[in-house]
Amino acid sequence: MQEELIERLIEQFRSLPGVGYKNAQRYAYSIIEGSTERAKNFADAILQAKSKIGFCKVCGNFTDKDICPICAKRNRKVVCVVKEPRDVLAMEKVKNYDGVYHVLFGTISPLNGRGPDDIKIRELLQRVQSDKVEEVIMATNPDVEGDATAMYIAKLLRPLGVKVTRLAQGVAMGSDLEYADEVTLSRALEARREID
Amino acid sequence: MQEELIERLIEQFRSLPGVGYKNAQRYAYSIIEGSTERAKNFADAILQAKSKIGFCKVCGNFTDKDICPICAKRNRKVVCVVKEPRDVLAMEKVKNYDGVYHVLFGTISPLNGRGPDDIKIRELLQRVQSDKVEEVIMATNPDVEGDATAMYIAKLLRPLGVKVTRLAQGVAMGSDLEYADEVTLSRALEARREID
Repeated sequence: MQEELIERLIEQFRSLPGVGYKNAQRYAYSIIEGSTERAKNFADAILQAKSKIGFCKVCGNFTDKDICPICAKRNRKVVCVVKEPRDVLAMEKVKNYDGVYHVLFGTISPLNGRGPDDIKIRELLQRVQSDKVEEVIMATNPDVEGDATAMYIAKLLRPLGVKVTRLAQGVAMGSDLEYADEVTLSRALEARREID
Repeated sequence: MQEELIERLIEQFRSLPGVGYKNAQRYAYSIIEGSTERAKNFADAILQAKSKIGFCKVCGNFTDKDICPICAKRNRKVVCVVKEPRDVLAMEKVKNYDGVYHVLFGTISPLNGRGPDDIKIRELLQRVQSDKVEEVIMATNPDVEGDATAMYIAKLLRPLGVKVTRLAQGVAMGSDLEYADEVTLSRALEARREID
């Protein structure tokens, strides 16, 4: 016999990615056991984030402004193309990248019924032309869909005279060769560089 | 360069038990990417749960009524004593238990500075007398603090003429003997029963 309001809150937490019933229950109890102020702040943060955050007009990333802080300040001649907003955060860990981003919001995936028109490719082409972009760095994930999407976009971009590059693929720093998969090893071998 | 409102939402999710930065970020993006209606429902579920849910006057469990549905309907002569509200849910999986509960909201834990007066022991004693309880089942966790708390309460209850029992301890159903710890095995051995 579970209380209806608790059940409702548990259901909300379960709707988050990767959260099962047990964890949703822990989260719900933590809210109920916490202070009223905390519950208010939590609810408010959800509403504020949802209502005030939209898309940057330039790169498509989430922002509460017209143009996001990255597009507003940095070199728009170099554009790094990523699959989704959280990839921007990942790339931003590289401190010396001074270019901007373009968020595709997905990859081409025929199996899931997503074609080129379902992701923000058209916007990228327009942008490359209007901003006279010099280099587009394809930073989609190093998997089948990410590779295919990068290839597809590169083909469209080349006639526009822009340089198109792809993040290097190889063995990850600090990883153990013994556990690297064969595709990674074969790519690392192909892309081997002379030590000088 | 993270947006402030997103950061604020991530911080809220991080305040949930066992949620790290990466997961909090996934949850926050899931809210932002989801519908406005979902965000509203989520915020509302938090506020409603926090504002409407209080404690049952009888057992101390969470409820949005004066007396929870369990205490309202079932046999109050048998009381199962648990550490916290989620333990009630766990016990309720036992379908044929018809008694009620008492939530201690903690266990006696000198190391953490929690004495008998910091948990709901006094309320239990009052209840045992006023409801003429016949049996108290100690269902605190089978660990040092849970055992000590059960012993302490049993000592207080015995002079009142009430039967005090403890959940059986032994090897768990479906578990592998090889991986059972020595304390569990020794208790299972002590409490062995004749096969008839």
